[in-house]
Amino acid sequence: MNKQHTAILHIHCPDQKGIVAAVTGFINQHNGNVLHLDQHVDFEQDVFFMRMEWTLADFDLTVDEFVTAFAPLAETYSMQFDLFEGAKPLRMAIFVSKQPHCLYDILSRHETGEFPVDIPMVISNHSDCGHIAERFGIPFHHLPVTPETKAAQEQEQIRLLEEAHVDFIVLARYMQILTPTLVDRYPSRIINIHHSFLPAFAGARPYHAAYARGVKIIGATSHYVTADLDAGPIIEQDIIRVSHRETIEDFIRRGRDLEKAVLSRAIWLHLRRQILVYNNKTVLFG
Amino acid sequence: MNKQHTAILHIHCPDQKGIVAAVTGFINQHNGNVLHLDQHVDFEQDVFFMRMEWTLADFDLTVDEFVTAFAPLAETYSMQFDLFEGAKPLRMAIFVSKQPHCLYDILSRHETGEFPVDIPMVISNHSDCGHIAERFGIPFHHLPVTPETKAAQEQEQIRLLEEAHVDFIVLARYMQILTPTLVDRYPSRIINIHHSFLPAFAGARPYHAAYARGVKIIGATSHYVTADLDAGPIIEQDIIRVSHRETIEDFIRRGRDLEKAVLSRAIWLHLRRQILVYNNKTVLFG
Amino acid sequence: MNKQHTAILHIHCPDQKGIVAAVTGFINQHNGNVLHLDQHVDFEQDVFFMRMEWTLADFDLTVDEFVTAFAPLAETYSMQFDLFEGAKPLRMAIFVSKQPHCLYDILSRHETGEFPVDIPMVISNHSDCGHIAERFGIPFHHLPVTPETKAAQEQEQIRLLEEAHVDFIVLARYMQILTPTLVDRYPSRIINIHHSFLPAFAGARPYHAAYARGVKIIGATSHYVTADLDAGPIIEQDIIRVSHRETIEDFIRRGRDLEKAVLSRAIWLHLRRQILVYNNKTVLFG
Amino acid sequence: MNKQHTAILHIHCPDQKGIVAAVTGFINQHNGNVLHLDQHVDFEQDVFFMRMEWTLADFDLTVDEFVTAFAPLAETYSMQFDLFEGAKPLRMAIFVSKQPHCLYDILSRHETGEFPVDIPMVISNHSDCGHIAERFGIPFHHLPVTPETKAAQEQEQIRLLEEAHVDFIVLARYMQILTPTLVDRYPSRIINIHHSFLPAFAGARPYHAAYARGVKIIGATSHYVTADLDAGPIIEQDIIRVSHRETIEDFIRRGRDLEKAVLSRAIWLHLRRQILVYNNKTVLFG
Repeated sequence: MNKQHTAILHIHCPDQKGIVAAVTGFINQHNGNVLHLDQHVDFEQDVFFMRMEWTLADFDLTVDEFVTAFAPLAETYSMQFDLFEGAKPLRMAIFVSKQPHCLYDILSRHETGEFPVDIPMVISNHSDCGHIAERFGIPFHHLPVTPETKAAQEQEQIRLLEEAHVDFIVLARYMQILTPTLVDRYPSRIINIHHSFLPAFAGARPYHAAYARGVKIIGATSHYVTADLDAGPIIEQDIIRVSHRETIEDFIRRGRDLEKAVLSRAIWLHLRRQILVYNNKTVLFG
Repeated sequence: MNKQHTAILHIHCPDQKGIVAAVTGFINQHNGNVLHLDQHVDFEQDVFFMRMEWTLADFDLTVDEFVTAFAPLAETYSMQFDLFEGAKPLRMAIFVSKQPHCLYDILSRHETGEFPVDIPMVISNHSDCGHIAERFGIPFHHLPVTPETKAAQEQEQIRLLEEAHVDFIVLARYMQILTPTLVDRYPSRIINIHHSFLPAFAGARPYHAAYARGVKIIGATSHYVTADLDAGPIIEQDIIRVSHRETIEDFIRRGRDLEKAVLSRAIWLHLRRQILVYNNKTVLFG
Repeated sequence: MNKQHTAILHIHCPDQKGIVAAVTGFINQHNGNVLHLDQHVDFEQDVFFMRMEWTLADFDLTVDEFVTAFAPLAETYSMQFDLFEGAKPLRMAIFVSKQPHCLYDILSRHETGEFPVDIPMVISNHSDCGHIAERFGIPFHHLPVTPETKAAQEQEQIRLLEEAHVDFIVLARYMQILTPTLVDRYPSRIINIHHSFLPAFAGARPYHAAYARGVKIIGATSHYVTADLDAGPIIEQDIIRVSHRETIEDFIRRGRDLEKAVLSRAIWLHLRRQILVYNNKTVLFG
Repeated sequence: MNKQHTAILHIHCPDQKGIVAAVTGFINQHNGNVLHLDQHVDFEQDVFFMRMEWTLADFDLTVDEFVTAFAPLAETYSMQFDLFEGAKPLRMAIFVSKQPHCLYDILSRHETGEFPVDIPMVISNHSDCGHIAERFGIPFHHLPVTPETKAAQEQEQIRLLEEAHVDFIVLARYMQILTPTLVDRYPSRIINIHHSFLPAFAGARPYHAAYARGVKIIGATSHYVTADLDAGPIIEQDIIRVSHRETIEDFIRRGRDLEKAVLSRAIWLHLRRQILVYNNKTVLFG
């Protein structure tokens, strides 16, 4: 991890000759020093992907100037690009229901400085985790949800999120399905943890389904939320082996460790701007 | 692994007090020395499972006598039981199509003595792997299958299997679906390798489906074949991590290693009589 | 996991015929119902190991009566045995230095009921983690250690531990080496987490050593503390893959997740009385 | 994997501004199309590493011309570089002793086209594997080694290797230590498989040592051979979990699967020119 003040650029465009030379030439010409460059061509789709990080110390363009100066080159290659400032901490909201294990894990990582992120709020449809947010000094909003109040409560969620300039949302075992109203405002910016190795056991009670099927591995999957339940771009997955001796309670208990780890890795990749979403899949840059 | 002449007993029955004491008392009384005892109660179903292995050196019953002598005790506890002679090598038929990697893996393990098994035949719907069977001195039967000839060829397969007293069948990437005629003759005795972590990506072309979904892990599953495609009792599963850099060809290439390993572990467990099938799930004894 | 009131028995003795029958017969005769029996013979050493758990509901012996009644049978087979009451929560002390990640992980598991354990104290040679213990309502004892004060402070630790009837100690990244005075009082009852896959990289700064060697996997190991540094019986180990792109800081960050998981699994096994130590190795019962 | 005719360039040099721009500009100017570019800066040592692969279809330089044309740029940045032709199969010799599992695995991968490599010979100090090489149509040289004949036999090995223009050597469980005479001729071009997770259990009988220590994981490590036994740059490692129920024979049996997989992955990376050795460590490009 690099502590310098840096900028990060994501690019994707139709593949053709000379893209890397053109882009690195541009950065060089403006006196940036490339720290990381990870480039990839998807030959099935003929799409070029790149993430580049460079130091801003001697760079002679501001962020706004970059966008203007880079536009002609981007147009030449039909690029879509995103620019991020590496040093600027993102603002993350956490949604949680009753189960606190992911919340604890995230807040303790935040407190110890592992996650360079601001956490302006925890939102929950239950009050159970309120004391945990309080311990860590994070504002807690209890917004109970019933079929009748769901739409109204989501409006309140959106108001809180926008007021606090939240950049992205983490669903830390939030047991409500978000409506398109909310999902569409945060494209590729809502991270969910699902407690199965998707696409197996999508939907409710995956540990019970895994137990019933008699699988020998169980898993967890972090993904960006889209309009399709549990079908968004997968960020990270992991599994553990289970045995016939284990009960559903064992699956749930051991699965919590998976959920914590897999969700935290997804948050880390998101914070480091290592994720590019394309065609409902993720490119995870090194 | 124990080289002594042993007997292995599988038991399942409704759970109640005193089963272990009764069974071990019986073995003790007939002068058997218990080497391994693995016992397990499924509390969801209240079913007792046990595998026990004991030495036959001083045991005062033959296999036939055991069945008669043990019957009253089995009846008392409503047991279903199976008795195996540990030293008697099983007879295994291998079915293969065009891809040779699992076949090579199995035959080389057999040749080096890793698998204590007799292999009376390799059956294939293609001729591609004939030279491999020949190299290892295993009879190869080329039985091409078309929709019209399928039924007749399966009759021929059954004839060959029965003539050779085959105990169980390994589908080493055999790309034909077996009909109930064959499946029903070998219950819990046909082992298939499927190239996905089931239940995800059942059916055809799982690597392509995994690639399309953008998963971060791919897997392989060995299971007993039942009438439902890719839905039989799972024996063993494993996975590898994949990256966005990898193509479908990479998935296929790397997946072969998974398939070889997962299939071989299933064969090993079957040979060691460590698998008990109950309610479409496997109990894998230690 | 079983919620009934149970007793757990650990046995080891020279292997011979009839042990299982004798022990299960004894339990049966006193009206206990065996829930779990895991038995294992180490053929290299000819040693018999067994863990058995049975319900106390109808059992006609108290713990004290059991010891007396079982003694003749134990003597017949030269058994060493330990009896535990499954329902009685153990009392666990946590030692910690500056790094809080394992402490947070353990305390949050405790709070959510995952660990059925009493935690009467956190002891630290630094004050950094005091506020964490406080948040969870656990008494925190700050006992700074210098070469001069080490012996005296250890006496104070022992006083605190004994006063609180502590059953076992968890070193949750405690960066001091315990002296034999303390270690000898808690044989097989002090669990340490070492941040390497032992025996590789024993001693100080294992992540730095792993980085220097250029390994492709890093690990963590939980073990019981003995007089030999990092050489006690291993309870659990796990690893993650690392790449050349990662710095020592990445190893340390990602290693924290390993340490948390591996330490917690060791605590779980200890709490469940699934660990038997023999000849500086652990038998982990199922 | 890309089937086009390509060139691959490895570079390392002190890190400074503009390297990527300069190199990709050079390729672009000569009409090469960059397919893969993986770049990495080791900030501890301030060293820049890069692997780049580009198509030769329209490239206007031959290999020889490239070296001359690129030299000024290389000098400017104090680069060390290696150029490879992607389409040219390497020539690989296999050394083996008595155990055939890695040999079988490699030869069957070769036969099925997985490894784009020529195998002009198998060399062994025993005759056991002769029939395997023969089956696959590979010349087998039986060169028995005693302390007295070792030097002479190594001269014969070198003669055979040079006569056949061997590019690199795979020690597929070859149980002899190579002398510097041979090692120095093939720097970073002799791949060994060691049956432990190095640096743990270097030297002889690692499975026995792992068993004696009571580890819960065992591993295998592939590395380039250097003058220091088992201390060369690590290419790939992997592990499996083991239990107290397993004997040394189980470790050996299950370890074979690890050895096969880990060695084959190292060969694959070597064939793809994805490995750069620097300071006794490997950079594995994506």
